[in-house]
Amino acid sequence: MSYFSNVPEIGYEGASSTNEFAFKHYNPDEVVAGKTMKDHLRFAVAYWHSLTANGADPFGAGTAVRSWDRLTGMDLAKARVEAAFELIVKLKAPYFCFHDRDIAPEGDTLRETNRNLDTIVSMIKEHMKTTGVKLLWNTANMFTHPRFVHGAGTTSNADVYAYAAAQVKKGLEVGLELGAENYVFWGGREGYESLLHTDMQLELDNLARLYRMAADYADEIGFDAQFLIEPKPKEPTKHQYDFDAATTIAFLQHYGLKDRFKLNLEANHATLAGHTFEHELRVARMHGLLGSLDANQGDLLLGWDTDEFPTDLYATTLTMYEVLQNGGIGRGGINFDAKVRRGSFEAEDLFFAHIAGMDAYAKGLKVAAKLIRDRVFEQAVDRRYASFKEGIGLDIVSGKATLAGLERHALQNAPIRNASGRQEQLKAILNQYLLSE
Amino acid sequence: MSYFSNVPEIGYEGASSTNEFAFKHYNPDEVVAGKTMKDHLRFAVAYWHSLTANGADPFGAGTAVRSWDRLTGMDLAKARVEAAFELIVKLKAPYFCFHDRDIAPEGDTLRETNRNLDTIVSMIKEHMKTTGVKLLWNTANMFTHPRFVHGAGTTSNADVYAYAAAQVKKGLEVGLELGAENYVFWGGREGYESLLHTDMQLELDNLARLYRMAADYADEIGFDAQFLIEPKPKEPTKHQYDFDAATTIAFLQHYGLKDRFKLNLEANHATLAGHTFEHELRVARMHGLLGSLDANQGDLLLGWDTDEFPTDLYATTLTMYEVLQNGGIGRGGINFDAKVRRGSFEAEDLFFAHIAGMDAYAKGLKVAAKLIRDRVFEQAVDRRYASFKEGIGLDIVSGKATLAGLERHALQNAPIRNASGRQEQLKAILNQYLLSE
Amino acid sequence: MSYFSNVPEIGYEGASSTNEFAFKHYNPDEVVAGKTMKDHLRFAVAYWHSLTANGADPFGAGTAVRSWDRLTGMDLAKARVEAAFELIVKLKAPYFCFHDRDIAPEGDTLRETNRNLDTIVSMIKEHMKTTGVKLLWNTANMFTHPRFVHGAGTTSNADVYAYAAAQVKKGLEVGLELGAENYVFWGGREGYESLLHTDMQLELDNLARLYRMAADYADEIGFDAQFLIEPKPKEPTKHQYDFDAATTIAFLQHYGLKDRFKLNLEANHATLAGHTFEHELRVARMHGLLGSLDANQGDLLLGWDTDEFPTDLYATTLTMYEVLQNGGIGRGGINFDAKVRRGSFEAEDLFFAHIAGMDAYAKGLKVAAKLIRDRVFEQAVDRRYASFKEGIGLDIVSGKATLAGLERHALQNAPIRNASGRQEQLKAILNQYLLSE
Amino acid sequence: MSYFSNVPEIGYEGASSTNEFAFKHYNPDEVVAGKTMKDHLRFAVAYWHSLTANGADPFGAGTAVRSWDRLTGMDLAKARVEAAFELIVKLKAPYFCFHDRDIAPEGDTLRETNRNLDTIVSMIKEHMKTTGVKLLWNTANMFTHPRFVHGAGTTSNADVYAYAAAQVKKGLEVGLELGAENYVFWGGREGYESLLHTDMQLELDNLARLYRMAADYADEIGFDAQFLIEPKPKEPTKHQYDFDAATTIAFLQHYGLKDRFKLNLEANHATLAGHTFEHELRVARMHGLLGSLDANQGDLLLGWDTDEFPTDLYATTLTMYEVLQNGGIGRGGINFDAKVRRGSFEAEDLFFAHIAGMDAYAKGLKVAAKLIRDRVFEQAVDRRYASFKEGIGLDIVSGKATLAGLERHALQNAPIRNASGRQEQLKAILNQYLLSE
Repeated sequence: MSYFSNVPEIGYEGASSTNEFAFKHYNPDEVVAGKTMKDHLRFAVAYWHSLTANGADPFGAGTAVRSWDRLTGMDLAKARVEAAFELIVKLKAPYFCFHDRDIAPEGDTLRETNRNLDTIVSMIKEHMKTTGVKLLWNTANMFTHPRFVHGAGTTSNADVYAYAAAQVKKGLEVGLELGAENYVFWGGREGYESLLHTDMQLELDNLARLYRMAADYADEIGFDAQFLIEPKPKEPTKHQYDFDAATTIAFLQHYGLKDRFKLNLEANHATLAGHTFEHELRVARMHGLLGSLDANQGDLLLGWDTDEFPTDLYATTLTMYEVLQNGGIGRGGINFDAKVRRGSFEAEDLFFAHIAGMDAYAKGLKVAAKLIRDRVFEQAVDRRYASFKEGIGLDIVSGKATLAGLERHALQNAPIRNASGRQEQLKAILNQYLLSE
Repeated sequence: MSYFSNVPEIGYEGASSTNEFAFKHYNPDEVVAGKTMKDHLRFAVAYWHSLTANGADPFGAGTAVRSWDRLTGMDLAKARVEAAFELIVKLKAPYFCFHDRDIAPEGDTLRETNRNLDTIVSMIKEHMKTTGVKLLWNTANMFTHPRFVHGAGTTSNADVYAYAAAQVKKGLEVGLELGAENYVFWGGREGYESLLHTDMQLELDNLARLYRMAADYADEIGFDAQFLIEPKPKEPTKHQYDFDAATTIAFLQHYGLKDRFKLNLEANHATLAGHTFEHELRVARMHGLLGSLDANQGDLLLGWDTDEFPTDLYATTLTMYEVLQNGGIGRGGINFDAKVRRGSFEAEDLFFAHIAGMDAYAKGLKVAAKLIRDRVFEQAVDRRYASFKEGIGLDIVSGKATLAGLERHALQNAPIRNASGRQEQLKAILNQYLLSE
Repeated sequence: MSYFSNVPEIGYEGASSTNEFAFKHYNPDEVVAGKTMKDHLRFAVAYWHSLTANGADPFGAGTAVRSWDRLTGMDLAKARVEAAFELIVKLKAPYFCFHDRDIAPEGDTLRETNRNLDTIVSMIKEHMKTTGVKLLWNTANMFTHPRFVHGAGTTSNADVYAYAAAQVKKGLEVGLELGAENYVFWGGREGYESLLHTDMQLELDNLARLYRMAADYADEIGFDAQFLIEPKPKEPTKHQYDFDAATTIAFLQHYGLKDRFKLNLEANHATLAGHTFEHELRVARMHGLLGSLDANQGDLLLGWDTDEFPTDLYATTLTMYEVLQNGGIGRGGINFDAKVRRGSFEAEDLFFAHIAGMDAYAKGLKVAAKLIRDRVFEQAVDRRYASFKEGIGLDIVSGKATLAGLERHALQNAPIRNASGRQEQLKAILNQYLLSE
Repeated sequence: MSYFSNVPEIGYEGASSTNEFAFKHYNPDEVVAGKTMKDHLRFAVAYWHSLTANGADPFGAGTAVRSWDRLTGMDLAKARVEAAFELIVKLKAPYFCFHDRDIAPEGDTLRETNRNLDTIVSMIKEHMKTTGVKLLWNTANMFTHPRFVHGAGTTSNADVYAYAAAQVKKGLEVGLELGAENYVFWGGREGYESLLHTDMQLELDNLARLYRMAADYADEIGFDAQFLIEPKPKEPTKHQYDFDAATTIAFLQHYGLKDRFKLNLEANHATLAGHTFEHELRVARMHGLLGSLDANQGDLLLGWDTDEFPTDLYATTLTMYEVLQNGGIGRGGINFDAKVRRGSFEAEDLFFAHIAGMDAYAKGLKVAAKLIRDRVFEQAVDRRYASFKEGIGLDIVSGKATLAGLERHALQNAPIRNASGRQEQLKAILNQYLLSE
């Protein structure tokens, strides 16, 4: 049976322009900057948003109309697997991502929960084989169940910590079984509500301990996925420990975990932290820690995680610019951690939304590739910093300078001349590239 | 002559309750938590806000009415020194802080500028000797002059970098001359306006180089002040490199500078970064990097640095709580990096404002001391985390646990029970301590 | 049976200081500013937060442990009524508030839903008679059910509009039956998600039509409750139509509804809109539209409605200051539209939280009363605006001035002298009143 | 002499594509939606940002390098006039705007100040005649001088109020003299810093009085310009009285001024108030109050008015969409209330920036015109609200419905069906129009 029978095979507009479900910019096999789009844009469908979630928000019940709605328990879980693969295949997305609890329901005991999980994992494995769809990453949901009310790896309750650890262990095993290319940690409840009753030191020490145990266990079972931590500044907790890229890097450095973990960066989390997405990518890139992307966008006039599908072409262009400068996203990918609006509750909206996002990223890739080909911003940078290529500037960057030497230079060097940074011109050029590509 | 002839000797209300300039809570010699208030509350007057600034804002000219207004150049600089010491002494503040350009004007050349500085430094030294007032810290203003338009330690122009280095060198010499207990780096222009033309890697490398040169030079001349970096997330640049405590710690770790620098934390900068002040203190404290405080407060409904005098008793209590837990502020102090409102333009307002701030901190100290004496929050913390003192919890914190062992525990351990975090009760108790102390 | 058997009779600390559930500042019968506290502080318990909600948030399931949890359907609804009255009576709160769907579940049809409602309303009426507890206001929940996905009074679907109208009609009848003193409209889904597909003009016209029909029907059935609209800027919709007090007033003026409606103002909604709560109260007060209060507080570092119990004494003081200046809150009250934190999931937390809030308001009332008795701020205001009491100032306020006359005055009047606004001194005095009362 | 000798005649790229100062999208004579671009896009140069300001910010001195820098006083003012007209003419901008104090310096007395103003106004009038450049609007700067520290029309000092009134009188006379099409009121200091000492009622009453006197005087002298009020939520004051469009409309309604005033809306002010610019335009449009535009853009991650030149094509498209739906901007225009970044300090940057902004608006106009031609969003709206065109929906909008009638409809009408709002699809279509136009 088909769960999305209204939606035909999705085409590329270059070929079939009459289909409203056709891509306008994304052509998987088109070559851009030396690779096919497919190879640059390792798109993944997020199971939780597109299969499991129902459109509920803090003020209202679910609105989503899905053909598997009437089922419950394991029947529902199985129907979702069928629907998931139909969706992913129709979208021509090479990857998907999930939390353990997205795909299978909790049972009465952890043992039963794991059994449920195993059943669905087998089914998924079969589908992966048949379709060629791959698992970009999996992770453990350690935030929805009430037991995690005070945290998981940073809980105040050792029994909860043990439970979380068991969940991570199972998650690593599932990742191994399904050939996941990455394994993600998002600290949904890893933060605090009030400092008045929080032992932040103990909580962070414990979190680092959990990460180390996870790395050890992955080694033990031969699971060589790239480990990723996903920063977010707040929500659900008042203050999440992995506030942003820099905070997470400080943590990894402090606990000696920098060689084992990279970052899974999300656009909406960046802006909630007061940064542009490209800032977060740049920070990670400078530390060699750019791991993977959660592709979405926030509404900068709203103060919570809206997880919209990414359509802003400025953002996708500057994102792909950083990715290309990074030599690509490596083992990571572009995961649509995005949900259709509560008012877009029909199944077709899942297609419109993904196509909107994939097209926006495809266009962004093309524009970024041309900007780099023409060295537009590189030339601006070269000109701006030219003084560090010779004379006193070269002394500075080569480590030969001292305060005394620099003072001698400064005392005889007047007046100093600066050059305009030409921001407005660069923004106009960006517009030209966006429109002309 | 007196610059503040309207203001009488400032008393402590316990002694002289009729004076409107009397402290209600700050009694320098009163003993709290084993030290005199004076020893806990190492208050400093900020020269730039209280002597140099004039109340101008982006939409309007200066409003401050000061008795030294009619002077210019070095005459003005000298009059300000006189006024400064009268103000500091009347306020019974033990310390003051300044940027080089607050105290003396720039000349036509760096050489002349340094001569101006030397003249005023001699004068200040004399006043310090006479009055016993000490220098908490000095720093270099590398953000006001147009030459720093693209940064100082992170400029795109090597000549500007050299100039900044010369200024730091002189700043260290001045600090040594005046016996400064700390030396501060605030990166006013160390950030970026647009990534489109910014080489963030080079800029940060250069900044670290400047810090290392500064440390080397301080060693060379025997200046043993504590070095402090002051985080701020944005303003004046779109993105300041020292965004918050965690970001600055990541920087210090990455460049191997963590042993030489601590943090000078500011309340208003904390909230601009999305954190409470106590959060920033806690983060610094956990890394042994709590250096000094810039005491002020922001308006959380406004998006810029308002630098108000601190009057919120919740904030001062929780600040002093962290300071007491840190074993005090060490060589640092409590610098009123705060300005009277533009509408509070009379000289008396400087007194009302400092008294308001000093009283708020004194009250905060007393409340914090009582909270700690009664172990109010410590008990709550002990209860919450008790499960990590024995059994599986002890295994976790002592590093004996593994994922497999924790899974075994979790598989047989059901159901898990959590306890309420009692946040509302703790907040009510905080109110009771605030009101009853 | 008792639903809160752990909680003893709640005392006033002046009488019984050993009880941890005792009020420290709220003494219902104490006289403040000419009335008993009880008469000033018309506290109401919010049924939805304290009886119906379970602690779920966008990232997690409910955590609340309640003794009525195991029930469902109408049995659950009935148990909640029992629990509600036990809670309200123990708290000595004179009032409660509810949405229709808080107290009784929806049935399969509107008819059945109304029958459910009738059953519970009868039961509540009985309890009100027995206990003397009164209904401050009721309202219709027109935001939770998926049918309201595109709005209720501003829906794009006429059938939904009709449904909403039917719900309002029933709500008015219920209010009449229970003697509600007010009837509230909160436009949970009355706003828009995207202008791209929104006919804002039609939506607002329709909303005004609904309000007019409601007023007509209330007249028809003899229900003379005060009608209240509750502003909120955003959440759940991207842009709520009743953004803040001023926006709502513009709406009421435009549609000729100003005489029939007042405002129900909420602290957390005020700060989400960029205003202090006292600002919103002042705006409403100036228009004679201060109707009632939703007492809570937000976290200004978070961008969503946290609905915390109010504990900030500055806020409660300045709130009660506006209320006292308004001659009291009239037929309105102080409704705790506040929820215990998700981590405060035990039944006792409901008591701690309400006591914290009631105490904070009681203390705020006392401080505000003393400030007004001493005319602290009034005197400051009188001094500041004294120039409008005579001469050219009196001409201005009495409407005699013209531009030409004022120019004549200005041309010969130099220099102009202003006086300091003394903000810092006023803030210090506020602290003194807070601490000394 | 030329003040911008580096900048050649600015061309339209269709004609002269090699010039880096050529427009790519703005062709004044190209016909779009039935008018020439020039007629749709009534661009104005803002004198204050582009001629008077120098790049100073709260942390640094001016950086702008201008060929008239070395002059002072009236010589400077005269040179600026020459430069202004060279700039405006080269940019092919039909309009300019100014505050009184932008164009001429204050003298020692108001009389002398007015004489200075008269001199420059004569000179400007001559240039206007020669060049054909017109005055979109003028206004009075009643915020920079210290006398306005406590406000102008809302000052606490009657002498200041008189001074402001005199300034407005003169402003109206100047507007008449130069044939200004509009006269603007922006309340730079019309707001409050603290409610503790503010009589908001008196301040707003006085502001309304000033507006009425201004209208009367304009009538008296036969100056028939459109009067405009410009909303802004905060900065420089903590709370500006004209917070946003809705607040300003409430004010105009309350004081009976709605027929005489329209709104001058600014993009950056909109976002500071928590709204999109198109929201503000829609609100004004619904009230028939869309007067004129201050075209710029803010940085949504920063909390102050950055006044950047507008380059975001989404924003310019949606702005022009509202303008076209409004039947054009009428007597208003598109004023670049925008400043080059402090780092863009060379004279050429003024050209790059204006060209960037004019091109972005030109492109936005074209995209908006095509969206309207194809009725893209209109069709979506028509479909969504179709139910209000017949049956019960028609009863509702025609005012025939009652609660009882609607209840009858609802009781028999089940289940209700809603349709998806298709937001993601609409956003994808917007991208297609942006890229394909």
